[in-house]
Amino acid sequence: MAAPSDEEGAVGPRCHHPPAAMLDVPFLPFCAFLGTLGLLCVAMAGTWCQHWRGGFSLDGSSRTFNWHPVLMVAGLVVLYGAAALVYRVPNTWSGPKLPWKVLHSSLALGAFVLTVLGLAAVFRFHNSQGTPNMYSLHSWMGLGTVLLFSCQWAAGFGAFLLPWAPAWIRALYKPIHVFFGSTILMLSVASCASGINEKLFFSLKNGTTQYKLLPAEAVFANTLGLLILVFGVLVVAALARPSWKRPDSDSPDSRQ
Amino acid sequence: MAAPSDEEGAVGPRCHHPPAAMLDVPFLPFCAFLGTLGLLCVAMAGTWCQHWRGGFSLDGSSRTFNWHPVLMVAGLVVLYGAAALVYRVPNTWSGPKLPWKVLHSSLALGAFVLTVLGLAAVFRFHNSQGTPNMYSLHSWMGLGTVLLFSCQWAAGFGAFLLPWAPAWIRALYKPIHVFFGSTILMLSVASCASGINEKLFFSLKNGTTQYKLLPAEAVFANTLGLLILVFGVLVVAALARPSWKRPDSDSPDSRQ
Repeated sequence: MAAPSDEEGAVGPRCHHPPAAMLDVPFLPFCAFLGTLGLLCVAMAGTWCQHWRGGFSLDGSSRTFNWHPVLMVAGLVVLYGAAALVYRVPNTWSGPKLPWKVLHSSLALGAFVLTVLGLAAVFRFHNSQGTPNMYSLHSWMGLGTVLLFSCQWAAGFGAFLLPWAPAWIRALYKPIHVFFGSTILMLSVASCASGINEKLFFSLKNGTTQYKLLPAEAVFANTLGLLILVFGVLVVAALARPSWKRPDSDSPDSRQ
Repeated sequence: MAAPSDEEGAVGPRCHHPPAAMLDVPFLPFCAFLGTLGLLCVAMAGTWCQHWRGGFSLDGSSRTFNWHPVLMVAGLVVLYGAAALVYRVPNTWSGPKLPWKVLHSSLALGAFVLTVLGLAAVFRFHNSQGTPNMYSLHSWMGLGTVLLFSCQWAAGFGAFLLPWAPAWIRALYKPIHVFFGSTILMLSVASCASGINEKLFFSLKNGTTQYKLLPAEAVFANTLGLLILVFGVLVVAALARPSWKRPDSDSPDSRQ
C-alpha cells in the first residue's frame, strides 16, 4: 500500500516530534554492514559450490558451471551494489566530481567483467555437455538483466564521463539512469533467486537427498537466496533515502 | 550506475531545454496501458493452466494447483499494483482524502484475499499428494513476501485509517510504508518468476517435450514471466515519478 508521497519528515503544523531524526541511521556503519553482508553472500556461494557441488575447474564439467553462481553474485549483485552506492559516501559530496565518476564507472565495469565471466562459465558448461543454452525463464531474465546493465553502463559513460554530452542531455538522462540503477539490481537479485532455486531442483534428486526433504545443502542455499534478496533491498533502500543523497545534484563541476 | 541524485529536470544555469517536459508521459494513458498489461498477465496465466496443464478444479489434484499461479498473479501482482497506484490518480489530489484511503486499503485487502486463496490452492495440492510444503527457495521467498504484505496492510490500516495514530507516528511511518510498497511488489514479481521457472522444470520432462527443447508451452510461460517483470518495473517507475505524486502530502484532511 503506497501512501501518497514520500517527503521524509514532512509533518503537520501541530507536530512537535522530529520523525526523520528518529530514523537517522549513520551511513558508514550501514555501509560496513552491507559490505559484510555482500561478502557473506559471495563466501556462501563459494562454500555451496566447494562443499556440496565438487569445487571449481575450467574443464567444462559441472565444476566449471560452479563459477557461474559465485561470479554472478560477486559481480551482478555485490560489486554492482558497491558501484551504485559510491555517490552516497559523504566524502564524494565536495571537491571535484570527476574522480568519483571514474570510481563509480570502474566499479561498475568490474562488476560487468565478473558478470561476463560468469556467463562464459555456464555457456562453456552447456556447450561441453551438449545442453541447449537460453531456454529457461531464469536464463531469459538473467541475460535481459545483463543486457540492460550493459546499456546502462554505455549510456552512463557516454552521458556523464565523456565531455561531449550537453547539460540538457545529462539532465534528461539522469533520472532514467538512477531509476534503472535500482531496477537492474532488483532484476539481478530476482535472477539469482530463480537460478539458485533451479540449481537445487537439478542437483538434489537421484543419488542425493531430494530437495523436498530439505537436506542441509537446501537449507544453506535457500538461506543464501534470502540473504541476496535482503542485500538487494537494503542497497535500494540506501539509494532511495533522501538524506543520503548528494546535496548538490548539478553543480557546475558535475559537467566535468 | 546510480548518478548522484534524481531531482528531475534540474539543469545548469546555461541550459535552455526543458528536459522534464520532454519525458512527459500523461498518467491516465500510461495507467490504461498498465491495466491492459496486467489483465494480459492474468489471462496468460489462466491460458497456460487451462490449455497446457489440464484446467481447474478443487479436488486436490494438479488442477487444484493451477489456481495458484493465476491467483498469485491476479492478487499479489496486478491488484496489488492497482492499489499502490491509487494516490497517483489526479482526481485523488483534491477534496477529502478518506474515500481514497478506503479505496487504496480495500484494493490491497482484495489483493491479500486472492493471495491467501492462491496459497491455499498450493497447500491443498501438496497435502493431498503427500508432498512437503515450504521447502523450495521459491516458497520461502513467496511466503516471506506475503508475510511482509500482511504486516504492511495491518500497519497501514492502523497508522493511516484508524483515527488514533498521532501525526508524528504517521510521518515517521509513511516513508517506510511507501518504500515497502514498491519493495513488496518487486519481491512478488521475483517470486512469480522463480515459481514459473520451477513449474516448467516440474512439468516439462517425462512424457512431454523437455523444457530445454523449448516447446510452445515453455515459450508462452517464459514470455508470461517476462511480462510480469515488465509490469512490476513499470508500476514501480510510475510510483517513483516525482510529477505523478500527490502534491500536498500532509494537508490537514490527510489526518482524517
